[in-house]
Amino acid sequence: MKGSILKNMQIFENIHPLRNWRRLMVREEKLIGFVPTMGSLHEGHLSLIKQANKLCKAVAVSIFVNPAQFAPNEDLDKYPRSLSDDLAKLSAINCVDAVFLPKVEDIYPAGITLDVEKQLGTFVEVKGKSHQMEGQSRPTFFRGVATVVTKLFNIVQPDHVFFGQKDIQQCAVIKNLIRDLHFPLELHVGPTLREEDGLAMSSRNKYLTPEMRKVAAILYQSLNAVKHAFEQNIRDRKNLLAPAYDLIENKSKFIKDQNLDFSIKLDYLSLADPESLQELDEVGENGAILSGALYIGTTRILDNLLLNCKI
Amino acid sequence: MKGSILKNMQIFENIHPLRNWRRLMVREEKLIGFVPTMGSLHEGHLSLIKQANKLCKAVAVSIFVNPAQFAPNEDLDKYPRSLSDDLAKLSAINCVDAVFLPKVEDIYPAGITLDVEKQLGTFVEVKGKSHQMEGQSRPTFFRGVATVVTKLFNIVQPDHVFFGQKDIQQCAVIKNLIRDLHFPLELHVGPTLREEDGLAMSSRNKYLTPEMRKVAAILYQSLNAVKHAFEQNIRDRKNLLAPAYDLIENKSKFIKDQNLDFSIKLDYLSLADPESLQELDEVGENGAILSGALYIGTTRILDNLLLNCKI
Repeated sequence: MKGSILKNMQIFENIHPLRNWRRLMVREEKLIGFVPTMGSLHEGHLSLIKQANKLCKAVAVSIFVNPAQFAPNEDLDKYPRSLSDDLAKLSAINCVDAVFLPKVEDIYPAGITLDVEKQLGTFVEVKGKSHQMEGQSRPTFFRGVATVVTKLFNIVQPDHVFFGQKDIQQCAVIKNLIRDLHFPLELHVGPTLREEDGLAMSSRNKYLTPEMRKVAAILYQSLNAVKHAFEQNIRDRKNLLAPAYDLIENKSKFIKDQNLDFSIKLDYLSLADPESLQELDEVGENGAILSGALYIGTTRILDNLLLNCKI
Repeated sequence: MKGSILKNMQIFENIHPLRNWRRLMVREEKLIGFVPTMGSLHEGHLSLIKQANKLCKAVAVSIFVNPAQFAPNEDLDKYPRSLSDDLAKLSAINCVDAVFLPKVEDIYPAGITLDVEKQLGTFVEVKGKSHQMEGQSRPTFFRGVATVVTKLFNIVQPDHVFFGQKDIQQCAVIKNLIRDLHFPLELHVGPTLREEDGLAMSSRNKYLTPEMRKVAAILYQSLNAVKHAFEQNIRDRKNLLAPAYDLIENKSKFIKDQNLDFSIKLDYLSLADPESLQELDEVGENGAILSGALYIGTTRILDNLLLNCKI
């Protein structure tokens, strides 16, 4: 550690002492960078934290599995939780000043049920950015995201926040949330980190068996085939997406032929306008967000590539 | 002005310079008090501002007629606007450091239409506190209030905020909003200010003709009759509210008999639990919020009294 300062990583389980820490940072005129996570940290998270550490003298990371972004039929209960591993990883990179581990009842003082109709308390929605793409498959997901992010922003009051491109619609939702609600902070979107075969890093990859893991790069390969077609100046939806549908169909057949004990099923492929998030028949000057979700057994993986656009 | 400091009341039409003002106040270690208003200021607003000035060294007042809290059939277009009068009143009380006069397009960067189904951008809802009482008559009103208040809180970032008891359900909504979204600020509820005959001060009282104004205290008198019954230890809804219904019915008949060119019509009387805001058949230990809305011609007036409870 010669030449570098060893950070004193403080752990906060309650809001009040975290706010005291924040006040101290402000008094010391340190910019605060914030990376909200649901834990089960991988290199993707760590790269965002390193990015925060480059820009900000004080870095806060939250670990909170947010119930409000899970539907009743989704995996809230089995979502991977690995707190001691996470803390070891955070400590090892020496980039973190504060880890915030709030309790559900502190974040949701009115309580939280997964049944949206029965929910009480304050909720935040980003209309116009939440119903397409992932929102079609998960209609209340981004309401849960926008709500928890608003709470966390108000608790941590950071100057800079960092989210991964892997969850690209989440980035769009938060970009609009920050603008519309006038949060005095700057959003940074970090690149998707990938395994050697191209599979986007994700906490949910832990659900995959070794056999599933072997075929999981198919989503990335399919998106890449579309990107390749785009680079060959193909612009119409049908011809752009055709190679992706083909690759996934072939892989599905291959899995059946091998008598593996799982199957894969495409949830959706989306070719959307980067601003409106509406599906495109033809990619124009603004480029497109190419994204998709795929079930491997019961595990749903998600990925995206940008075609000539930024988020 | 001997002995008192003449405040330099600055006017901000844009967010950025207001934020610079705020930063200066923080650097000078001045607590910031904030009174959001829709303008058309009366003594009720001024009393809140004076309260803010007693507690905080820096006082900000916003004047913004918030489109999102008006339904398409309501009075957004004719809502009274009197900016130069308002500024003169604010200057005269020598309690205000910053007046914020934002534009609709700055507060709502995604635009704002009154048709809730067509609205785009970020909206905030306080579930469980917004559908009763006023919310029954005005179902999207508190969504508009919660949304604009969230934006203003993030822009001004005050330490203390001040709202009037006159809009008691608004106070309940904002109390929950602050708690749920973890705004680092304290809510203060100022008392309802009244005209000599008891009519609660309100910007909408300007709509009343002299003839209407003469009968407008009937709502307060009716609520007061209920309060009197409550003080006589009556606790059941029917017997508590009976004198109010009687008074309003009698006044309505009187107006008809006099051949006046308007009529009065009760919108609702509410006797609600102060926590759940649910209607009560019987007032128990927690007391009750007694409130009502009454049309005088097309003008809707609103009032409330607390029966053995606080907000």
